[in-house]
Amino acid sequence: MTVEAQFEKLERPTVPELDAILGVPFKVLDDGFVRVIDYMGNDASIVQAARVSYGKGTKKIHQDRGLIRYLMRHRHTTPFEMCEIKLHVRVPMDTWRQWIRHRTANVNEYSTRYSIAIEAAYQTAPDQWRLQASGNRQGSAGFADEALGRRLSEREAVLHQLARDVYNERLEAGIAREQARKDLPLSTYTEAYWKIDLHNLLHFLELRMAENAQWEIRQYASIIGNEIVRRWCPLTWEAFLDYRLHAISFSRLELDIIQKLTVGQVNEAIASAIQSGLLPEDFQPGAELKRNREREELEQKLRQLGLPIPWEAAIKK
Amino acid sequence: MTVEAQFEKLERPTVPELDAILGVPFKVLDDGFVRVIDYMGNDASIVQAARVSYGKGTKKIHQDRGLIRYLMRHRHTTPFEMCEIKLHVRVPMDTWRQWIRHRTANVNEYSTRYSIAIEAAYQTAPDQWRLQASGNRQGSAGFADEALGRRLSEREAVLHQLARDVYNERLEAGIAREQARKDLPLSTYTEAYWKIDLHNLLHFLELRMAENAQWEIRQYASIIGNEIVRRWCPLTWEAFLDYRLHAISFSRLELDIIQKLTVGQVNEAIASAIQSGLLPEDFQPGAELKRNREREELEQKLRQLGLPIPWEAAIKK
Amino acid sequence: MTVEAQFEKLERPTVPELDAILGVPFKVLDDGFVRVIDYMGNDASIVQAARVSYGKGTKKIHQDRGLIRYLMRHRHTTPFEMCEIKLHVRVPMDTWRQWIRHRTANVNEYSTRYSIAIEAAYQTAPDQWRLQASGNRQGSAGFADEALGRRLSEREAVLHQLARDVYNERLEAGIAREQARKDLPLSTYTEAYWKIDLHNLLHFLELRMAENAQWEIRQYASIIGNEIVRRWCPLTWEAFLDYRLHAISFSRLELDIIQKLTVGQVNEAIASAIQSGLLPEDFQPGAELKRNREREELEQKLRQLGLPIPWEAAIKK
Amino acid sequence: MTVEAQFEKLERPTVPELDAILGVPFKVLDDGFVRVIDYMGNDASIVQAARVSYGKGTKKIHQDRGLIRYLMRHRHTTPFEMCEIKLHVRVPMDTWRQWIRHRTANVNEYSTRYSIAIEAAYQTAPDQWRLQASGNRQGSAGFADEALGRRLSEREAVLHQLARDVYNERLEAGIAREQARKDLPLSTYTEAYWKIDLHNLLHFLELRMAENAQWEIRQYASIIGNEIVRRWCPLTWEAFLDYRLHAISFSRLELDIIQKLTVGQVNEAIASAIQSGLLPEDFQPGAELKRNREREELEQKLRQLGLPIPWEAAIKK
Repeated sequence: MTVEAQFEKLERPTVPELDAILGVPFKVLDDGFVRVIDYMGNDASIVQAARVSYGKGTKKIHQDRGLIRYLMRHRHTTPFEMCEIKLHVRVPMDTWRQWIRHRTANVNEYSTRYSIAIEAAYQTAPDQWRLQASGNRQGSAGFADEALGRRLSEREAVLHQLARDVYNERLEAGIAREQARKDLPLSTYTEAYWKIDLHNLLHFLELRMAENAQWEIRQYASIIGNEIVRRWCPLTWEAFLDYRLHAISFSRLELDIIQKLTVGQVNEAIASAIQSGLLPEDFQPGAELKRNREREELEQKLRQLGLPIPWEAAIKK
Repeated sequence: MTVEAQFEKLERPTVPELDAILGVPFKVLDDGFVRVIDYMGNDASIVQAARVSYGKGTKKIHQDRGLIRYLMRHRHTTPFEMCEIKLHVRVPMDTWRQWIRHRTANVNEYSTRYSIAIEAAYQTAPDQWRLQASGNRQGSAGFADEALGRRLSEREAVLHQLARDVYNERLEAGIAREQARKDLPLSTYTEAYWKIDLHNLLHFLELRMAENAQWEIRQYASIIGNEIVRRWCPLTWEAFLDYRLHAISFSRLELDIIQKLTVGQVNEAIASAIQSGLLPEDFQPGAELKRNREREELEQKLRQLGLPIPWEAAIKK
Repeated sequence: MTVEAQFEKLERPTVPELDAILGVPFKVLDDGFVRVIDYMGNDASIVQAARVSYGKGTKKIHQDRGLIRYLMRHRHTTPFEMCEIKLHVRVPMDTWRQWIRHRTANVNEYSTRYSIAIEAAYQTAPDQWRLQASGNRQGSAGFADEALGRRLSEREAVLHQLARDVYNERLEAGIAREQARKDLPLSTYTEAYWKIDLHNLLHFLELRMAENAQWEIRQYASIIGNEIVRRWCPLTWEAFLDYRLHAISFSRLELDIIQKLTVGQVNEAIASAIQSGLLPEDFQPGAELKRNREREELEQKLRQLGLPIPWEAAIKK
Repeated sequence: MTVEAQFEKLERPTVPELDAILGVPFKVLDDGFVRVIDYMGNDASIVQAARVSYGKGTKKIHQDRGLIRYLMRHRHTTPFEMCEIKLHVRVPMDTWRQWIRHRTANVNEYSTRYSIAIEAAYQTAPDQWRLQASGNRQGSAGFADEALGRRLSEREAVLHQLARDVYNERLEAGIAREQARKDLPLSTYTEAYWKIDLHNLLHFLELRMAENAQWEIRQYASIIGNEIVRRWCPLTWEAFLDYRLHAISFSRLELDIIQKLTVGQVNEAIASAIQSGLLPEDFQPGAELKRNREREELEQKLRQLGLPIPWEAAIKK
């Protein structure tokens, strides 16, 4: 059989659900957006690429969904790189500084050397001022009260106005755009074309949809995941939620302690925790425990599994 | 104006010339091929991305062709990353070993762990045996004569047959595919999906279409360039030929010598060449010169520009 | 305080345990090796980089070990990129084809265009021929018997000899090295300098030390991990074993079923398994079950945790 | 010979000239710096890596300098990736936004989520305000006069003070650091560890030491190049200046026109320029020419080579 006879002419894979929203912006924050400009491939492209690797022998055994779930579960990541998406986003520079740390994407950003900066800054409503978390140095917890919030938003408006005035004064005085921009606030919006393959996009979403991601970038990530990837590659999105976003990893020590608990070896579990430093060497049931971040993480997992926390159980004795 | 009102729904950019050959294999070597599986973007997408960077101010000044040529000339590479292509290729493993050194692509290769190796090896016809170049340690020059060529091709056939027999014997004896394959010749064909953005593809083509690239990979690169990229992004392809593939770079020293030659300062040009080590310190017109690779490269450039080679001119005096 | 006064002159970080083996080859397979050529940084460099991110405020709270373990547990990967290592390796090309798929390393490989191919191929001893696994399309299981092993090794020797003879004949006939090499067996050894940062090296090790990695590359990965990284960054290596290599991830469904089992809701656990497709809709205790890869993986995890497999328990009723 | 016997124990390569300044900051701008934290390799490491590729055959032929220059001239880039350097930098965020676009580096940046923002912003002295270039949309040309400069610097100080006050007010009110920072000016200093291989560093320097790079980042790039790389890998630095930074590329068209000019074919050169669109189809000597960026670039190159500009020569007739 000749090479020519072996292959038929192809049509490009399309996704009607995604075509339906192509170019349409999803609003994010007060003046930001995400919209899809173009894409390459779909769930079937992942299967197709995987089957090149696995050859024809396995063709009939798997169905598409099963194969995609297998690939996701076992971190066979290269087939997911065979899909690509291009977004047009509008984001505060502060958020963009986090976004751009993902180095595996292609980027064209709006240039404030060439053009006048976008005349919009991300404004904080009075009820959106978040308080510093006490337990977590990088998080926030709860909101400022109404009076404080209003005062902060007013001060913000004053600062935004002065910053924009100073920027405009410089431009009017003939100062180069590349220098005039130097004191724009980080809240100033920027725009970019951002192109990334599906594997790296999922990695971005795993980190930026997580609870400890900053609230602002989480809004963007959630839209990209729930509105865009879900439409684009629904089988992959389902597998991602099951095996990545909502999966939990247990360390060697955690597995050891859980094994002991499921067969009722409470003392042995405590001994493991002492040996690995989760509990003090002189641990006594009922004693006050110093904070230990890894132990607290384990306790949360045990609670989630419905298992007793052995040192608390011990305390209760 | 609301965000929603600002943007219209988009259609995906398409390239009818490329759609016409989608999936159709271009034959390469005796049993290899390249075929386009999918693509994202076109010449207009490059312009679109560049204009995000440059903002609206420059929109009317440039025409597309002029902007693409400007971007190529000044190595503004990011807009070219906004186009992506996915190829299905069939390549001898020997050639694939060079190909895969380009790390910026996404790859899914046929797995000989999962599946039986492709039953085809790249065969050399009697008139295709190339002789070792004498001046260039890594090149070839001219062909073996007919009798020698025939003898080498016969021996090749014997080796291919034995290698395939041994492979089959192992499989029949129940040996794992992952081990049975270990002695396949490098000429065995493999297949892969290969996905890459246009910027990195052009870099691949610049290196692999070059004269000093190995003949086999040059066949693939030429097909990809002349048959595929030319159809896909014709303005970019034209600019690439003008400013990259057929451009020549002149070093600081070469510029210095050319400057002197264009104003007739032959002795000063020779002095520069001596000072920089291209000519010996005791250079005498008419004396035999030791080989010097950099000087030979300069001589070739001077000839191409129609300029005299000053030390040869000197010799002739 | 001036900038100059703020910083003291530094010495380069060193690791005496690694310095002691610098350049010394660890033997792998019959004729391969791995040796360390150079390195940058150590466990303290990871801490140092992390503390730039976290600023001075957290400096006293953490001790180095705790911080490294925290970074590893929460996949804060960038500080691990601050260490770099350069290895010189000698590997069969067959194994190298897998190795080179890790794209984030820097590579200089021995060139058989410039030089005559290394005169060594990886030879299989009679007792090392592995049988194809039946359950796993890409694995091996057990060894061929002695008589078969001897026969296969003999045939291998014949093939290696012919391949080398043909290669030498071509060289003697003046054929270009770049073409003469085309039928070398994949078992031919190659050499390379391979430079990679610690984060990407750990990713390589996680995949290539895994049980389902091919035996040959696992030998290399184990040496790099157990002999080199363990000496170089012992705190990181310990954390990697605990939180990565010996950790297990549980999917959303698996967590759901385990939660039910730990509180004794066997029927609810079975219902979850039916709903998610792990068990057939008409599941009856005692009925024969069709194979389902995801269910089998879950069963293995349940056994490891000492939990009952509900559908087997049901069967036993 | 055994593998063990083949290799001697190694010492790490060092560079005394770089060791002498390890950790010592080079001041940049009003409050920024660059200092070397660690490095791997030196000029000899590049040679060593290249010789693995080229095998032992070529060992004696080249001297190190010649080989490094050959590699640089012919863009054999992988051996330069075998050297790595780690810098600690302090940079205004505005400049950092350009810097971070180079994606091939490893980065740990000071986090204003974890820690209070660095209390310093890049201040512009009255004589440093640059005017917008008229010909080049992204450049600057000349300086504002003294009175204007003083007024702008005063306004800058007011804005900096208000921005810092607002930031402090938020922190004092208990607002989360991750949100309080949102209106810091782009001129606020940040710090980072930045680690990159020599090949990618040279690419960074080629772009950021160029005349059209923004003045601020050029200050950093010049220090890194002239003070650090020059000490670290002096042979590479020399070759980089000769073959990259001070080299000029001539396009296919430019070569064609130069060829014609060197043999006196002025009319043919003009015809080429007309055919390629550099001159209008109805070009008449003496006529006013519309601006054409590519033609102006060619004119500049011709002047540099001492060649006549044919259409000007024509004009003069």
